[in-house]
Amino acid sequence: MVQQEVLNRVFASLADPTRRDILIRLGAGPATISELTAPTGMSLTGMKKHVQALENAGLVVTEKVGRSRQCRLGDAPLDAAMAWISFYQRLWARRLDGLDAYLTLHTGPKERDR
Amino acid sequence: MVQQEVLNRVFASLADPTRRDILIRLGAGPATISELTAPTGMSLTGMKKHVQALENAGLVVTEKVGRSRQCRLGDAPLDAAMAWISFYQRLWARRLDGLDAYLTLHTGPKERDR
Repeated sequence: MVQQEVLNRVFASLADPTRRDILIRLGAGPATISELTAPTGMSLTGMKKHVQALENAGLVVTEKVGRSRQCRLGDAPLDAAMAWISFYQRLWARRLDGLDAYLTLHTGPKERDR
Repeated sequence: MVQQEVLNRVFASLADPTRRDILIRLGAGPATISELTAPTGMSLTGMKKHVQALENAGLVVTEKVGRSRQCRLGDAPLDAAMAWISFYQRLWARRLDGLDAYLTLHTGPKERDR
């Protein structure tokens, strides 16, 4: 997958509260689809769809173990998303630095520090 | 909007490369819908829909100025998204700390440092 496609899938995965909850649950350790489903009142089929979306985004890895499917976090989950947001926030900070410089220029640093 | 709904909208907004590009363009300063559209080869209507999605997520603010609509970044864009991902990565780091502790317990620190 190219980077843009990775970001599309990761952010789309995170746009759902159930999928965010699954990631947090798997942060505590692997779980089967049934274990993920139990506290939610959701159908197994519904949960499988959410897990599939997370798997397509590389956020979750699943493996058939006996009759159940074990789910765990992928490697370095959310690194791509974090990198994009960090890049964006640096851009934003520079914009504020520019604004700060502008205000300092027009009012003087002492004026602004009062 | 409750926090979950904010996160749903912010992450859904970020799941599209055109919308990510709009945010980066607006990081350089405000622009009209026409100015945002020009380099993309997209229709004005298509661009308006993307801007509307960003506005619904609070990432962009628009204002009618004469006959055009000026777009600029919202205040503190992506803070909610950043906070969620940071929280998640701390969780993930603790998981790795746990794994580290487990490996240290089973192999001893000297063994692992070789």
